[in-house]
Amino acid sequence: MEIGYKSSEKAFSRDENGPWKFCDEDDIKRIIEGTETDMKLSAMCDIGRIEREEIGPKSESVLDMIRVACYVKDVDKAIDLAHHCLDQGYEATVNIMAISKAIERDLDEALDDLAKSNVPVVYLVDSFGFMYSEQIQYLTRKYLWALKDKTLGIHAHNNQQLAFANTIEAIICGANRLDATVYGIGRGAGNCPLELLLSFLKNPKFDVRPILDVIQTHMLPMRETIDWGYFIPYMVTGVLNEHPRSAMKVMGSEQRDEFREFYDKMTDGTPLE
Amino acid sequence: MEIGYKSSEKAFSRDENGPWKFCDEDDIKRIIEGTETDMKLSAMCDIGRIEREEIGPKSESVLDMIRVACYVKDVDKAIDLAHHCLDQGYEATVNIMAISKAIERDLDEALDDLAKSNVPVVYLVDSFGFMYSEQIQYLTRKYLWALKDKTLGIHAHNNQQLAFANTIEAIICGANRLDATVYGIGRGAGNCPLELLLSFLKNPKFDVRPILDVIQTHMLPMRETIDWGYFIPYMVTGVLNEHPRSAMKVMGSEQRDEFREFYDKMTDGTPLE
Repeated sequence: MEIGYKSSEKAFSRDENGPWKFCDEDDIKRIIEGTETDMKLSAMCDIGRIEREEIGPKSESVLDMIRVACYVKDVDKAIDLAHHCLDQGYEATVNIMAISKAIERDLDEALDDLAKSNVPVVYLVDSFGFMYSEQIQYLTRKYLWALKDKTLGIHAHNNQQLAFANTIEAIICGANRLDATVYGIGRGAGNCPLELLLSFLKNPKFDVRPILDVIQTHMLPMRETIDWGYFIPYMVTGVLNEHPRSAMKVMGSEQRDEFREFYDKMTDGTPLE
Repeated sequence: MEIGYKSSEKAFSRDENGPWKFCDEDDIKRIIEGTETDMKLSAMCDIGRIEREEIGPKSESVLDMIRVACYVKDVDKAIDLAHHCLDQGYEATVNIMAISKAIERDLDEALDDLAKSNVPVVYLVDSFGFMYSEQIQYLTRKYLWALKDKTLGIHAHNNQQLAFANTIEAIICGANRLDATVYGIGRGAGNCPLELLLSFLKNPKFDVRPILDVIQTHMLPMRETIDWGYFIPYMVTGVLNEHPRSAMKVMGSEQRDEFREFYDKMTDGTPLE
């Protein structure tokens, strides 16, 4: 389970972002205290938002894994940070974000660098919820071809109601680290719903019923105060291969239901105010 | 556009079902009067719910097409009714429902009967929202192989957030009659959202913006009083390859958010009261 981000206190305000932007050991311990599980815990790092010195040895941490997120241009920095995490005793992954906007040649070079690295797991990330199954198939095969002895992961966003379908497509093509969230919760349109993925996998060691409990007990009340899922502004940024920030902005405004106006602003280049 | 069902007054109560279960010419004319469009109008018939004598000549109707829905066992009756519709001057299709529950050999025979018929269009229908892309691929290829000179359609339900993805999969495999509804409206979890499909097709003659207008003007207010879309009870019947009627029943009850209990009732065979 990914419990939050590890970031530098210099990069973000704790007041504005809360404890899970930082994942201090004491905060995590406060949560997991008293639970008995062999589930591994992971945290995510964004390149540029943390220094390697801020990630200490695994022996002093309850975290098992660090996932390093980066843009294509920063893959060398991500490999360097992931190597540091491996040296400290953690499992480590590199998650290349926003590849639907990347220049193919740059992506090829990034995969080449990753192939030569010790990073054991690389994630295909559809940050904008833009991709159709054909892109997922093409990129999954490209990643696996370039990263022959590595494990491939998939992280999909649900802007076009394709996060689950694209996760299945990636599985069929060879991915086997699968990101999903309970009831699809996540930024903007959210991610692949865990209850759908578990039901698809039909693995006898998985049981969907406790997840249904969590949805009814925790997610339904949360949906009363937080929006995620299929909303037209997120669909529009997904279709247009754009970062969801404009959609998130309009969703928090009085114009949230002015879909046509939002689409027109996004397509004629007028900046959204 | 499919405007409703054509049914016999003997099969349903008009008071309980409203005018669109019957699609009388006068009712349709009342709606389309004053509009200028070359859009074709269609109505759906269910086998057993209408007599062929109740479908008069096209020259006396504003309908262009009759789509005949049937279960595998009734495909001969559906072919007979579709032939009658063709004779009366309409376009006609046969839509075989609930095939995820059908015995493969029965389906093969039904396709064989359709292959020998004059019915020009046959629909693959995932009535329960059960199918993954692999089933869609397999069945689309099976239908096309069996029905070589016919056009294939796809009608998907969205119980597992796969209606759009499965429609894309069917397109890739050769389907080219594509059912979709504005904002995914439809019974239970609804259907493939038209705004997503139009954006995927990227055909310059399609414009998604008027659909966005309709969503903001008509569908959002409708969503205040009618439920459709991703709800856990519909997800559960989809995963279990069951008719959504149990989910619809629980959605209209005080137990609508008791997901775990619903799942347990659906899987241990205890009838839902």
